[in-house]
Amino acid sequence: MATLNDIGVAAAINILTALAFFLAFAMLRIQPVNDRVYFPKWYIKGLRSSPLVNGSAFASKFVNLDLRSYTRFLNWMPAALQMPEPELIDHAGLDSAVYLRIYFLGLKIFGPIELTAFTVMIPVNWSNNTLEHSGLTYSDIDKLSISNIPIGSHKFWTHLVLAYGFTFWTCYVLKREYEIVAAMRLHFLASDQRRPDQFTVTSISITSFIRESSLLLINKVLARNVPPDPDESVTELVQHFFLVNHPHHYLSHQLVYNANKLSELVNEKKKIQNWLDFYQNKYKRNPLKRPSLKTGFLGLWGNRVDAIDFYTSFVERLSRDICGEREKVSSNTKSIMPAAFVSFKTRWGAAVCAQTQQSRNPTTWLTEWAPEPRDVYWENLAIPFVFLTIRRLIAAIAFFFLTFFFMIPIAIVQSLANIESIEKALPFLKPIIEVKFIKSFIQGFLPGIALKIFLLFLPTILMMMSKFEGFISLSALERRSASRYYFFQFINVFLGSIITGTAFQQLNHFIHQSTSQIPKTIGVSIPMKATFFITYIMVDGWAGVAGEILRLKPLIIYHLKNSFLVKTEKDREEAMDPGTIGFNTGEPQIQLYFLLGLVYAVVTPILLPFIIVFFALAYVVYRHQIINVYHQEYESAAAFWPDVHVRVVAALIVSQLLLMGLLSTKEASQSTPLLITLPVLTICFHRFCKGRYEPAFVRYPLQEAMMKDTLERAKEANLNLKGFLQNAYIHPVFKSADESDSESESEWERSPALVATKRTSKRFTPMPSKDGGSVLSLDQVNDECLKP
Amino acid sequence: MATLNDIGVAAAINILTALAFFLAFAMLRIQPVNDRVYFPKWYIKGLRSSPLVNGSAFASKFVNLDLRSYTRFLNWMPAALQMPEPELIDHAGLDSAVYLRIYFLGLKIFGPIELTAFTVMIPVNWSNNTLEHSGLTYSDIDKLSISNIPIGSHKFWTHLVLAYGFTFWTCYVLKREYEIVAAMRLHFLASDQRRPDQFTVTSISITSFIRESSLLLINKVLARNVPPDPDESVTELVQHFFLVNHPHHYLSHQLVYNANKLSELVNEKKKIQNWLDFYQNKYKRNPLKRPSLKTGFLGLWGNRVDAIDFYTSFVERLSRDICGEREKVSSNTKSIMPAAFVSFKTRWGAAVCAQTQQSRNPTTWLTEWAPEPRDVYWENLAIPFVFLTIRRLIAAIAFFFLTFFFMIPIAIVQSLANIESIEKALPFLKPIIEVKFIKSFIQGFLPGIALKIFLLFLPTILMMMSKFEGFISLSALERRSASRYYFFQFINVFLGSIITGTAFQQLNHFIHQSTSQIPKTIGVSIPMKATFFITYIMVDGWAGVAGEILRLKPLIIYHLKNSFLVKTEKDREEAMDPGTIGFNTGEPQIQLYFLLGLVYAVVTPILLPFIIVFFALAYVVYRHQIINVYHQEYESAAAFWPDVHVRVVAALIVSQLLLMGLLSTKEASQSTPLLITLPVLTICFHRFCKGRYEPAFVRYPLQEAMMKDTLERAKEANLNLKGFLQNAYIHPVFKSADESDSESESEWERSPALVATKRTSKRFTPMPSKDGGSVLSLDQVNDECLKP
Repeated sequence: MATLNDIGVAAAINILTALAFFLAFAMLRIQPVNDRVYFPKWYIKGLRSSPLVNGSAFASKFVNLDLRSYTRFLNWMPAALQMPEPELIDHAGLDSAVYLRIYFLGLKIFGPIELTAFTVMIPVNWSNNTLEHSGLTYSDIDKLSISNIPIGSHKFWTHLVLAYGFTFWTCYVLKREYEIVAAMRLHFLASDQRRPDQFTVTSISITSFIRESSLLLINKVLARNVPPDPDESVTELVQHFFLVNHPHHYLSHQLVYNANKLSELVNEKKKIQNWLDFYQNKYKRNPLKRPSLKTGFLGLWGNRVDAIDFYTSFVERLSRDICGEREKVSSNTKSIMPAAFVSFKTRWGAAVCAQTQQSRNPTTWLTEWAPEPRDVYWENLAIPFVFLTIRRLIAAIAFFFLTFFFMIPIAIVQSLANIESIEKALPFLKPIIEVKFIKSFIQGFLPGIALKIFLLFLPTILMMMSKFEGFISLSALERRSASRYYFFQFINVFLGSIITGTAFQQLNHFIHQSTSQIPKTIGVSIPMKATFFITYIMVDGWAGVAGEILRLKPLIIYHLKNSFLVKTEKDREEAMDPGTIGFNTGEPQIQLYFLLGLVYAVVTPILLPFIIVFFALAYVVYRHQIINVYHQEYESAAAFWPDVHVRVVAALIVSQLLLMGLLSTKEASQSTPLLITLPVLTICFHRFCKGRYEPAFVRYPLQEAMMKDTLERAKEANLNLKGFLQNAYIHPVFKSADESDSESESEWERSPALVATKRTSKRFTPMPSKDGGSVLSLDQVNDECLKP
Repeated sequence: MATLNDIGVAAAINILTALAFFLAFAMLRIQPVNDRVYFPKWYIKGLRSSPLVNGSAFASKFVNLDLRSYTRFLNWMPAALQMPEPELIDHAGLDSAVYLRIYFLGLKIFGPIELTAFTVMIPVNWSNNTLEHSGLTYSDIDKLSISNIPIGSHKFWTHLVLAYGFTFWTCYVLKREYEIVAAMRLHFLASDQRRPDQFTVTSISITSFIRESSLLLINKVLARNVPPDPDESVTELVQHFFLVNHPHHYLSHQLVYNANKLSELVNEKKKIQNWLDFYQNKYKRNPLKRPSLKTGFLGLWGNRVDAIDFYTSFVERLSRDICGEREKVSSNTKSIMPAAFVSFKTRWGAAVCAQTQQSRNPTTWLTEWAPEPRDVYWENLAIPFVFLTIRRLIAAIAFFFLTFFFMIPIAIVQSLANIESIEKALPFLKPIIEVKFIKSFIQGFLPGIALKIFLLFLPTILMMMSKFEGFISLSALERRSASRYYFFQFINVFLGSIITGTAFQQLNHFIHQSTSQIPKTIGVSIPMKATFFITYIMVDGWAGVAGEILRLKPLIIYHLKNSFLVKTEKDREEAMDPGTIGFNTGEPQIQLYFLLGLVYAVVTPILLPFIIVFFALAYVVYRHQIINVYHQEYESAAAFWPDVHVRVVAALIVSQLLLMGLLSTKEASQSTPLLITLPVLTICFHRFCKGRYEPAFVRYPLQEAMMKDTLERAKEANLNLKGFLQNAYIHPVFKSADESDSESESEWERSPALVATKRTSKRFTPMPSKDGGSVLSLDQVNDECLKP
């Protein structure tokens, strides 16, 4: 049992770690050589092209020699807070701005709760001496918790009343926040003001895409599962269907091509190109010795050839293959997928088409809002309806086993990966292993490593599961992964820490226990785990957030790339790894803190300040990162908010059930009826919010669409929408940066009302997703292949 | 424990009872005097105006003297089966035809299951002698059940394989049926053929409404929660909103008026009119003595007045009041409810409006398909969104308490209503009560009567709950009541009989029992209750269905009315009580048999023949009743099928869980993993069906709408749709039969393409619902009030 002193020491250690990280960050960020690691966002936006250097000496290009700047090492904090929210939305998109609101929501919920808890509950808890007389070992923390109240005491009414108060406050804040976010989303989708501004700004790459996408979001519909027809091609089928059923609104459509193989080739070419660059750099630095390599496995044997020649011809061969594959994709009808992006003349028409059922068979001609071009996950566009059901079933079962039985394979690996089996498999290592220090190190280290590796790869595994399930946009994939990750953490971190057993043992336990016993079992051990969770918050939350700002991994990778691969400015741009917010891992982490905060608010309020520090710190750090670092992969217009809302509500209900279990063991069972009504009311609150605000995230009201259409008609009567939308949904492999410079420029020029820009980064513009199907216009493909 | 002999005796008794009912029915139905009780449907349709008599003697008007007709006393059965389904749909509507398919579904599911079970499972069960050696008391029935298999035997594999087989068969039949019903519904909604036929048929009352309604279903949308506006009236608001947001499709709209008070007055007038008729009849039969009555309470004291004069002036006063109230309703803006029926020029426009969100705030301007005019439940049209959530919560809580605690008030009533308290309250009854025979009768009878009364009123209570919840159509009300009634029966009849305890005791038991224990507890007692359920099926199913055809209550009431109230043919028509299918009580009863059949299919297959007899008998009886008796209150185009489907699937899952529980006590636990996959697969099947077929019951595909529109434009280019739809949604009180004869004729003439008919029954034409708000056109109101 940790005492207040122990907690203090732990806090000091973690605060010092965090400070060290911040200090290191402050040092590193003002070095010009790291500028592209700590300010990539500005480079991508084209607002920064070289480090801000004071001197002009050679050294000052790499090291900051201005000593005054070292004294202001925390000045990024106020800077991060200064940018007002509307500007932030313009700068980094609505997703990022709303993501920050989640941290702020934590502050808004727990600030007043903490104040109330400290003024009311801590004195009530402290003023007893149950624990002193109980003869049990206890800590000072426990004296401040509900454990210190004697069994059957009337003081439990305080906790009951506060539970009500906290619930109402949380619901109130949640409702207001939902209201605000829904309004922000609708305003973002409808906002017309942004248009002229953003086309006169010097940069076009990102911002123009946001603008375009918000229009596309409104005018484009994705039609899937087009039924096959022996007499008509897919494009005729789509055209006829929409001409017949939406005669006044249909404008045009774009087909989806299956470009998986093409995508593979492009990726391979990129890899080979990297090697070519590496050897060319090597040759440049040491012009006396022309680099050579062996062609066999891993360069260990085979004929020795000239490396630069070898890779140059390799790249050329791949380029030819790519062109051939491109033509094949565009000419072969088999590579046309039964899906299409359909454009409409008006937002009204698109809103209607996205919200209605098209054909008698509801599993064909599925229509939905087209995701943003960057947001499309091409591979999944052509999965038939029946397989979707089966895939979801398989994914659900797989996730169930992953959550409850993940310890089994890890235990097997652990039992295999012991000293003896290593010695048996690789007997020549025996003398090294037998050294006592190394042996004990391996014995201590090996069992843990399997688990660590698994946890490291968990988000990737979950993302693969979501991909398997058939979602068609990256945002949906991330949302799905986030909810699974949260569930995994809830079972294995939250419940796992409280009950201390593997998830499968818990499951077994719960199945064989009565329903009313479960909240009791957990409720009783809740107060005892407070100190553990306080430590967890400090390590995972405080130090983790401070580590985030340091960006150690991107820093190292950037410098490695910079020294070995970079030849041109363009390469240097590609070496930057701005990263993204990482909704699928970040949001579940926040939600865990919401859960801890709500559960412990009534039980052990001393935990709350730690959570508040986390939220405040994370808010500042992530605001800074969003402004300066992260690159937005897609814009979903805060489509994730209903998920955030429902998870906080779920945490609220869990906290109420656990309190009920805890109080029922304290012989305060007369409070049970009052406590049962709390979750019922909370569920009711959730249903109300769902009905009132969720439609804003799912549908698009016709009134808005009509208003927008009318406005646009009045403002720009002769807007060439068709030309504007023509090539919006083109697969990235068809505009890979290495080949399509002129093409992509010409495309921009083709769309009317767009001004020429001095765009510096092209890499991020057409980046919908990694590989899979694609959309392209045939003439464009031929243009491209004729060019080089 | 009942033996096979006992069951045989019970079966004989029930078969005799059923036969007696059928015989009585055969005698009564051919008496001309009962013609209107047993063939009201034909009277309502106007295809029958007087009993089919052979002779012309006075007596033959009341008694059938043709002896030959008595010999063919079961010839109604083949007659009932002869009418083909398409004709049945024309005759009685799609709802009725699909309702019959539920019984037929039972036959289709359980026929093959029974055959398999009897050829495979009964021999396997019989070939053991576990029970003989167990020393327990057992019956012959038990020897045929799973109880006879020794613990841990490998023979359980038979049951496991059969459980899989039965599941797949049931799912296959369910899927096919869903497919057929969905196709029938779409065909019914789209069917154009019906139109010319039905307007040349001699009757117009019912059939024409079906036709009209199926059109209305497609062209009308109901807009609710119109937000208040200080500057505009509701009608302007509605018109402006739809003109702006659906400019090419909006046609017209009808407002909804709050006519609750008017409706009350009309009802009172009807009651008084009945009394007037009664006294006039009395006077006619005995012209010497003019009837008189006292004006005081219950006619016991007060001034003696002439009854006919008194009631005549009363009726006149009420008529004046009604006219005044009508004008008030139509002139006062406060009686306009914020809801309207909006008509569109095309089905496409209506389909779009019904499926999309209109305004930014999803709780205002709610649009949905307008129910059929007859189907509207007017009172609930104006409940705001927030109250809907609260009302649903209250109803859910009330239903929870009703289901689990309904025994408490009944027990209290029972404890109060004993002999002693009666003697104390009414001491003058003491000498009578003290007679031994009467005393024992009361003591035996009183405790049960409270429960019986409660169960009798349960459907009414559930219906009131549904009304409170705010559904706006009668069909939705009935669907909701049906699902609640089913749940009540599942808990209190099915589980209650198996566990023998009140629902609350069960709940308490389950909460304090482990989750895995529950299926075991129930599973073990399942086989022991087989004989009880066999008896239940015979009494409730066989005899109950046979009693249904006799229509004892309507028979008595008709003859009472006929002798006291009837003056004219019109009155006689009103005295008919054709009744309806009663979906809210009938369907849950069928579902209970599905549940019993599926649960016992593997456990005690001897129960299956009894269920099959029930389904066959009920199918024939209800087919006869639907053809000859029941009057369709509304047409929802089989909107209830998804409910039917989901309940059968739920029964399937319950049966699988109970089998799992049962087998786990038989030490056949190696089968558990195989049994767990069954419910998972079943749920998956359900989700597939939901995605594939349910949209046909919720949405209306645009392709269909467009096809229909195009066809109609080609066929009848100059159809005056506006005139046709103008007065479709008029509240019944505005066309009460006593006043609106000429008006309603003229209304029919106003709508084009309608031919004059010799309609004999007007009463059923404009019968949307009991009371509440109303829709009317102002000129029509004034017309009416000027008339008399």
